[in-house]
Amino acid sequence: MTLLQPDQYRQQFPALTDKAYFNYGGQGPMPQNAISAIYRAHEYVQRSGPFSSAINRWISQEEKQLRETIAAELQVPLETIALTENVSTGCNIAMWGMDWQPGDHLLLSDCEHPSVIATALELQHRFGIEVTTCPLLATLNEGDPVAVIQQHLRPRTRLVALSHILWNTGQVLPLQEIAQACHTHAGEVPVRLLVDAAQSVGVLPLHLVELGVDFYAFTGHKWWCGPAGLGGLYVRSELLTDLRPTYVGWRGLTRNPAGYPTGYHADGRRFEVATSDYTLYAGLQEAIAIHQLWGTTEQRYQRIRELSQFLWEQLGQIPSITCLRTAAPEAGLISFRTEQSNPASIVQTLESQGFLLRTILDPACIRACVHYFTLESEIERLIEAIRQAI
Amino acid sequence: MTLLQPDQYRQQFPALTDKAYFNYGGQGPMPQNAISAIYRAHEYVQRSGPFSSAINRWISQEEKQLRETIAAELQVPLETIALTENVSTGCNIAMWGMDWQPGDHLLLSDCEHPSVIATALELQHRFGIEVTTCPLLATLNEGDPVAVIQQHLRPRTRLVALSHILWNTGQVLPLQEIAQACHTHAGEVPVRLLVDAAQSVGVLPLHLVELGVDFYAFTGHKWWCGPAGLGGLYVRSELLTDLRPTYVGWRGLTRNPAGYPTGYHADGRRFEVATSDYTLYAGLQEAIAIHQLWGTTEQRYQRIRELSQFLWEQLGQIPSITCLRTAAPEAGLISFRTEQSNPASIVQTLESQGFLLRTILDPACIRACVHYFTLESEIERLIEAIRQAI
Repeated sequence: MTLLQPDQYRQQFPALTDKAYFNYGGQGPMPQNAISAIYRAHEYVQRSGPFSSAINRWISQEEKQLRETIAAELQVPLETIALTENVSTGCNIAMWGMDWQPGDHLLLSDCEHPSVIATALELQHRFGIEVTTCPLLATLNEGDPVAVIQQHLRPRTRLVALSHILWNTGQVLPLQEIAQACHTHAGEVPVRLLVDAAQSVGVLPLHLVELGVDFYAFTGHKWWCGPAGLGGLYVRSELLTDLRPTYVGWRGLTRNPAGYPTGYHADGRRFEVATSDYTLYAGLQEAIAIHQLWGTTEQRYQRIRELSQFLWEQLGQIPSITCLRTAAPEAGLISFRTEQSNPASIVQTLESQGFLLRTILDPACIRACVHYFTLESEIERLIEAIRQAI
Repeated sequence: MTLLQPDQYRQQFPALTDKAYFNYGGQGPMPQNAISAIYRAHEYVQRSGPFSSAINRWISQEEKQLRETIAAELQVPLETIALTENVSTGCNIAMWGMDWQPGDHLLLSDCEHPSVIATALELQHRFGIEVTTCPLLATLNEGDPVAVIQQHLRPRTRLVALSHILWNTGQVLPLQEIAQACHTHAGEVPVRLLVDAAQSVGVLPLHLVELGVDFYAFTGHKWWCGPAGLGGLYVRSELLTDLRPTYVGWRGLTRNPAGYPTGYHADGRRFEVATSDYTLYAGLQEAIAIHQLWGTTEQRYQRIRELSQFLWEQLGQIPSITCLRTAAPEAGLISFRTEQSNPASIVQTLESQGFLLRTILDPACIRACVHYFTLESEIERLIEAIRQAI
């Protein structure tokens, strides 16, 4: 559609009209169609309900359509998708649903989000499991993350939790090889692989069944540019009834004629709890549809890599700046250090000038993100602003 | 403001313009101001972010203001409120946060929502606790619910979970006496009281500290007429650090300068997980503000009782209808049986005529709800429609 008319294409995103946006890894700008779909949904709910059999049917349809859209994007069967409020909730569902025994081992990488680390620590407290981390940060430019993970698996490792794209350095992990390493590990218990997909969904072409991951927790509000408060969890078909639901509610239940719970749905709904903001479902669908209009996932990923390479090259020409990666980025996240200045004050200065980036605390750096619709001219202006700010 | 001009007051609720609404216990109609506040929030987020330090400040302010508003409504300290997606999530937080030991006892009433029953059954499966129910349904018209509960407490009862207003019969439980019975029970472990407040918040004048409950899980989208997908959990001050968070994420964490989790916030935020639909916060605030304009909680509750008594009396004059309660309702829920007809088909017929009610499965009945802004003429029209439908 608009590969050749980026300015026109970008007019669909109100957030992009008056700023240079580099925070896609924090939250994506919503297309106007997605915002309007939410408004229409609110109006429909009031008109036909808010609580009525008509609205209950509408919710079922919205749920089904969204689940179909997501399943198609991730190349997975429909029944493997649970809708959640955010990535952390998806991770919690997987992590709390395991049959933990005292002495079991949970392996994290050293680049995980605080949410996942905290969940692991809470499980350690509750169930007496061991939590360790393996050093993947050091594999950003050399070494083999698969070998590092393999070296840290133990006989009682029950779960490995790591990110598909590391949120701090932008490294893309070789997920298929990691899944294979987990699944072929000769321990006392099967090793499951939970993936924090906060930075990968909406960026990488995905075929989760082929990748072989067990659990994949994602959100709609980052690279998919959907509304905040809506994400999901993929649970591999074979594990759907193996993973226990933890927080439970009416959405996950089967019931007898008197309404009494008799068990859980056999599909991903088993992990869903209760009333959500259903108006968001149409919003996320519209957001995904707009990306599809621009090009295939492969085309978009290709464009993200072209643009991130361009930004990485430009940053590399500023003497006092060091990109964490020594080779071109594999996705849309570019993290860099400055020699003198405080990252927080640079980010604040840039924000006051309409350039939105963020700091990362560990390793201490600034993170800039580019999406497929980022402009080269936007990157050039950012480079100029950084030169002035440092 | 508008005690004398109900028609004009009701124009603020788009859902009420063309139907007779009796499903407040399912979901409340949103005032236009609340819907507009959500739209404005979406626009603000896109204009100033979506991910920026400006938006992070805005989220903090919205959170704080909403927490203050809710705390004032429930007459509790600010720090006791955790924001949640819905009532079930609030119940799950309380139920999963207890230090369950095998053989501990969890007591439910026989009138609880399937969500709470299912959570209890999951805890039974996971931790080897005993779950029993006490017969409160039979106390709707006679007997003493406090005595029934007391008779069912055991030495190892750690939690009693019941509703402030029973969702199926509309009975209002004497919560202060029940809390006292729990807290003075001479068992081996302290008995905590979790209250499902789905049907009481927005209806009863509340002073939770005086009531003495331990946990009170509520939602904004029923009697408060806020958006679906936003509720909260009150945790008594003394128990805030006693109750473990279960699902955890960045919103609940304290962190060191490198961003690594060091523990949980000391206040209700410890139970909050990650990104939510923050645009709803302004929506719920606006909804609560509109009720306050109409009158005090006491005035609104008084009006609800007048109207529910009127509906109950009118229903009582239809020969083939039996209200479950033999005395006037204590709140806005009125449940009734019909001699011949199938409740589901009556509800469906009524919905097709613009009268929105719902069925309850146990006990099998139809439930009609009135709010303080229900019209007497609306009730009269409903009565006429029911006479025709049965």
